[in-house]
Amino acid sequence: MSQRIDGHPYEMIQILEHQRREGNTIGFVPTMGSLHRGHQALVEASRNDGNFTVVSVFVNPAQFGPNEDFDTYPRDNDRDFELATAAGGDLVWYPDVADLYPAEAQTSVLPGDLAAKLCGVSRPQFFPGICTVVLKLLNLVRPHQTYFGEKDFQQLAIIRRMVADFYLNVDVVGCATVREDDGLAMSSRNRYLKPADRDIARTLYRTLQAAKAAFAAGERDATALKTQLTEAWPQGLELDYLAFREPEFLNEVTQLEADTRLFLGAWLRGIRLIDNAAVG
Amino acid sequence: MSQRIDGHPYEMIQILEHQRREGNTIGFVPTMGSLHRGHQALVEASRNDGNFTVVSVFVNPAQFGPNEDFDTYPRDNDRDFELATAAGGDLVWYPDVADLYPAEAQTSVLPGDLAAKLCGVSRPQFFPGICTVVLKLLNLVRPHQTYFGEKDFQQLAIIRRMVADFYLNVDVVGCATVREDDGLAMSSRNRYLKPADRDIARTLYRTLQAAKAAFAAGERDATALKTQLTEAWPQGLELDYLAFREPEFLNEVTQLEADTRLFLGAWLRGIRLIDNAAVG
Repeated sequence: MSQRIDGHPYEMIQILEHQRREGNTIGFVPTMGSLHRGHQALVEASRNDGNFTVVSVFVNPAQFGPNEDFDTYPRDNDRDFELATAAGGDLVWYPDVADLYPAEAQTSVLPGDLAAKLCGVSRPQFFPGICTVVLKLLNLVRPHQTYFGEKDFQQLAIIRRMVADFYLNVDVVGCATVREDDGLAMSSRNRYLKPADRDIARTLYRTLQAAKAAFAAGERDATALKTQLTEAWPQGLELDYLAFREPEFLNEVTQLEADTRLFLGAWLRGIRLIDNAAVG
Repeated sequence: MSQRIDGHPYEMIQILEHQRREGNTIGFVPTMGSLHRGHQALVEASRNDGNFTVVSVFVNPAQFGPNEDFDTYPRDNDRDFELATAAGGDLVWYPDVADLYPAEAQTSVLPGDLAAKLCGVSRPQFFPGICTVVLKLLNLVRPHQTYFGEKDFQQLAIIRRMVADFYLNVDVVGCATVREDDGLAMSSRNRYLKPADRDIARTLYRTLQAAKAAFAAGERDATALKTQLTEAWPQGLELDYLAFREPEFLNEVTQLEADTRLFLGAWLRGIRLIDNAAVG
């Protein structure tokens, strides 16, 4: 029987304290709601690791810019509860903004160079806001393991860095991107796409596949491949970045290796689309 | 028998894990070394609270500005060990810079408005550097209680804020300022003062005493008292700030109350001097 906690974390903390005393480990999946199969895969991974699994649903105001979609970001708490519990979640927590950002709160996390790259260039508030809320959530839930999707690979790298730099006592588990049948990476914002947008939105997936095919065919020159893929990018899909990076610090590479990742960011009529994959 | 740990925290963490399993609570006194009776009072407070008491000695590079005294800050690890253990410290830990700031570390803490006031105006790196190292230390030591002196009252307020904002599981204990016989607040930098400087350095203490006397005599107008005290400030002691503030957010006050604090910051031939006290 899964539990639903709205608002203040006190009751959740009691439940988790009980679980720890029983000898159970805690797995934690922080989300912004609008759950899809990508989130469900994180919940399933936590269950498969044997954890009592907590899912938080919180649309984090700190990670949205003033002209971004905080107010219109999709919210459906009842449906999220169904999807989280169907995947094996034991407790779904819906904090209010005042639970995580009371009026007097003023301390935040400042991620470093990693957060200034890729998505951080056009969205400077994004990763500081994510790190701040994730640190708060981790300190409240105090999980043994926490799960993040590789679709947001830069976020995963920054969270891993924060956990290491602050000596947080938690294991960060990255899970493979879950895709729609047509290859589009699962995203809560995909619901904004009109059917007619779908083919051009798949450009990101097709570009990743093209990079993998080139690598498999022996291409090792990152600069040449970047030029080729950029030239093939379609009109009508605004390219934010197309970048080959190593997977830990996301530094640029000139020579492709199997773990080099291609990172893509774009806007389609104002809808944010990102994707990434290793070329090898 | 007190223990001394140099460098990497692994051995300390094992010892503290053992203490917790034995049912002991952990008290933690973070210091920059050059221990004096002020630090010893923090160690004694932790001992009196029944804690297994850890003292860290670490001159934190992140809290010094480029033209400040990081390189010349006094260091004497053997003497510090004697003073810490004489006061009842059970374990003294001397991390190396690479233990707390490995080359790949890049995540830091950004305190808010509290850190932009008083000492934060002239020393912008100071409180972000303190918060970052204190968060790291707290996460490594994982104490039940941690002790800070009220001489650094702004630091204490900022640490309390960070602990609340990040939901850290530790009790922050503030301890009264310890003073020399002539009233000068204990400080590691007092050793830089020449005998001839001593009388003018005592201006801070005399000013606090004057404010208390004025309050006791019925003065409630903060602005008038500030003007009066500033006009009495001597030549040769460079005033950084003289400010009446409430004790939680350090906001300015116009009406003095018993818990209003007078904060003083100054330089004497380049030597930093600070002090504060409640007027009531």
